[in-house]
Amino acid sequence: MNATLIRSAIHIAAISGQYLATAMFIPAMLDLYHGHDDWRVFALCGFMVGGFSLAAAMATRAPNPTFNKRFGFLLVNVLWAVFSLVGAIPIYFADTDLTFAQALFESVSAVTTTGSTVLVGLDSAPPGLLIWRSLLCWLGGIGIVALGLFVLPFLRVGGMSFFKMESSDTNEKPFARLASYTRAFLAVYFGITLACAIAYDIAGMSRLDAINHAMTTVATAGFSTHDASFAYFDNVAILWISTVFMALCSLPFSILILFVARGRLDALKDPQIGVFLMYLAAFALAVALYDHFMNASDFPTALTQSFFNITSILSTTGYSSADYTTWGPFVVLVVFFATFAGGCSGSTAGGIKAYRFLILYNVLRTGLKRLVYPNAVYSVRYGSKTIDADTQRAVFLFFSTYMMLWAFGSVAMGALGYDVATAISAPITALSNVGPGIGPIIGPAGNFSTISEPALYLLSLLMLLGRLEILSVLVLLMPTYWRN
Amino acid sequence: MNATLIRSAIHIAAISGQYLATAMFIPAMLDLYHGHDDWRVFALCGFMVGGFSLAAAMATRAPNPTFNKRFGFLLVNVLWAVFSLVGAIPIYFADTDLTFAQALFESVSAVTTTGSTVLVGLDSAPPGLLIWRSLLCWLGGIGIVALGLFVLPFLRVGGMSFFKMESSDTNEKPFARLASYTRAFLAVYFGITLACAIAYDIAGMSRLDAINHAMTTVATAGFSTHDASFAYFDNVAILWISTVFMALCSLPFSILILFVARGRLDALKDPQIGVFLMYLAAFALAVALYDHFMNASDFPTALTQSFFNITSILSTTGYSSADYTTWGPFVVLVVFFATFAGGCSGSTAGGIKAYRFLILYNVLRTGLKRLVYPNAVYSVRYGSKTIDADTQRAVFLFFSTYMMLWAFGSVAMGALGYDVATAISAPITALSNVGPGIGPIIGPAGNFSTISEPALYLLSLLMLLGRLEILSVLVLLMPTYWRN
Repeated sequence: MNATLIRSAIHIAAISGQYLATAMFIPAMLDLYHGHDDWRVFALCGFMVGGFSLAAAMATRAPNPTFNKRFGFLLVNVLWAVFSLVGAIPIYFADTDLTFAQALFESVSAVTTTGSTVLVGLDSAPPGLLIWRSLLCWLGGIGIVALGLFVLPFLRVGGMSFFKMESSDTNEKPFARLASYTRAFLAVYFGITLACAIAYDIAGMSRLDAINHAMTTVATAGFSTHDASFAYFDNVAILWISTVFMALCSLPFSILILFVARGRLDALKDPQIGVFLMYLAAFALAVALYDHFMNASDFPTALTQSFFNITSILSTTGYSSADYTTWGPFVVLVVFFATFAGGCSGSTAGGIKAYRFLILYNVLRTGLKRLVYPNAVYSVRYGSKTIDADTQRAVFLFFSTYMMLWAFGSVAMGALGYDVATAISAPITALSNVGPGIGPIIGPAGNFSTISEPALYLLSLLMLLGRLEILSVLVLLMPTYWRN
Repeated sequence: MNATLIRSAIHIAAISGQYLATAMFIPAMLDLYHGHDDWRVFALCGFMVGGFSLAAAMATRAPNPTFNKRFGFLLVNVLWAVFSLVGAIPIYFADTDLTFAQALFESVSAVTTTGSTVLVGLDSAPPGLLIWRSLLCWLGGIGIVALGLFVLPFLRVGGMSFFKMESSDTNEKPFARLASYTRAFLAVYFGITLACAIAYDIAGMSRLDAINHAMTTVATAGFSTHDASFAYFDNVAILWISTVFMALCSLPFSILILFVARGRLDALKDPQIGVFLMYLAAFALAVALYDHFMNASDFPTALTQSFFNITSILSTTGYSSADYTTWGPFVVLVVFFATFAGGCSGSTAGGIKAYRFLILYNVLRTGLKRLVYPNAVYSVRYGSKTIDADTQRAVFLFFSTYMMLWAFGSVAMGALGYDVATAISAPITALSNVGPGIGPIIGPAGNFSTISEPALYLLSLLMLLGRLEILSVLVLLMPTYWRN
């Protein structure tokens, strides 16, 4: 490993640290306005982090290295590590009584847009802390979409190479420069957040709640400003607005970017969209019907509750509007397996993701045909394109590593003393960046406030692994990676 | 699909039916000797099935078709379907009060060497019924080893092509003819069963118990003649004898066959053996230490109990000597995930199997190296051999289909009203052909007697799917398969 690469990675991280330091003045001003003493914490942290990262940025200034894959992996890991640590500092020093492990967990949960919380008493929490959590989610969301659109396809991780802009858009060259695409993305991301906030506001949320929830909805993060999450509002309009925005932000952002920047709608032909909406509708309808017939719920209410909570899980947001784990074991099982599924590539959603399921299914179909006619040539399709063997292997590798990490995580949670429901659901809700698990402790009616420190560190690691699509983290464990 | 192929498959199945009909006279004689009226059931079924299958064999007599892959898939499915149905007939008519779904489940559980039972009151059950269950397991075991050694590698299902005799033994040509290999296998299988029965007998089992348990041990099936399974004997020697034989029969039979027939021990170099014994020792030691420290169990006792029960799960046998689910959530989780794992290829054990984990791990390692150096060529190794891309894909395909079937099965069990522990463990204990699940209903202290008919049919299907390595069954669902 070249020292220049490490220095450059720290340099870029330090510059990002300055942006985060600047962002800390938003909660500082809010707390000052509301007369809460935490404003000092955020202001002080802002100055300290800003100064320190300025010094680090100056000390590591050097000619930019060529952006190769090795540097890409290092940068992605360093960036998320620095974001997590810097995000944790004001949470730790604010008026919260959290241990460092808890503050770090809360920060990792935010920047990975997971939304699992260790905080209790959100309803009376200082506004600065709340907006800081939401801001971290929102910025994390930007990072994740950028990762999925620009970085991972280049790094060839998890079968995302398939979504490289070069390969899908070569003929049309719609974006001469990356910069215009990035600008369009930021405009879309900000625009959706604004639209969501306005809709929440009109539907009856307070101004601050609307802003906080809009940021964590668009990031499919799931942090709420109320312990009861969306059950607090008891408002059907708010639930449906949230359902629509959560689903929208689980779709590939390329759709909206191409539409906004070029008026093109051809990205809607991406077959993963159909797969995602199909399993979303199937799960939500099944749960609504089950709830209606088994628990004698009024059908429109069952439909609203089911669509909201299932969309929340599948979009890996993690809000809840009811303790759906009391609706029966069928619902618990649907939610548990929905936690693995996730949204689409190039969105803020996590999980295994719809395009991988589609590729797995198509490999299975052609594999079965090949069993009958071993000499015939069958290509694996994704829409109108052919999936090459490398991409197939990357998808399978991601899927099996995902399942193995879940299994190891569950056994580790069991060794740390947790019951079966908590032990099997905590690692997967972390890996998929969903938020709640099942069972009384971390289910929709619970939170992570009583989880022990070793478990919080384990789950923080799993959130980062899941968010960075696992292999981009594991690659750093290879001695090969560090050799020159 | 050629009518000749269907006729030939029925012809071979009818001949197998005659063997099964002949086998029915063993329980008939035993019941006659013990003065139990069931002897009439077995004798009558023997004559009926024998006559019917003789007629079917005569009616379908035709020149043997060339053994191609298409015929192979059909034959494997027809054979296991016929075995399951014919096995169920005397169970249904015997003195048991079972519904047809229950009798079929019991028979499928036997011929797939799963060992899940719907029978309660085994201690006072007629000896003919008990020996019939054990015989079905024992014959099923022969079928499974034959499938793994001769048929699946030829059909190229699940990455087993790697273990084709042709490819691994070409240079030495140790077996000029398949027949001598088959004879050696049958001698080994019968020899181990006899050794196991004698050991059980010496250690203190009754003659009949020793014979019954030897048959279900060698088949890694797990049916017992007592409701309490091995807890009934309360005998450390019996537990260790069983542990050794269960572990032995989870190893590739090729080791023993090559040793017995040629005095060769080179099959011991198969790397999956090390992997299997490593995870067996790791799981068993972890559980023993946990039990010792958490439940203050005496360490030698904890070791005996842990090795017996963990070997029982990993070898996919399914005996139990204690309700280990009361030892703590860590043990429940280890057992739950051990249910996925399984033994080695070419054994009577089921599950995902050690060689697939080894291949997954090696693909992961080379995949990570490839991320750093995309242009370097890395080959995936299995011992001294290279795993080609087709085998890798077959392994991944098996793994992901396995996990998806487990997920669908769990959701279906939830829809049928079962609690989470039952719903997530029943499909995997069926797919892996283990026997018990977790939770109060189907855990080691329970059984399948209260499971509803739809659930029994679902689990029977999953047992067959798992036993035939899934893809050999799914292939029949492809329209391509049936086209001429």
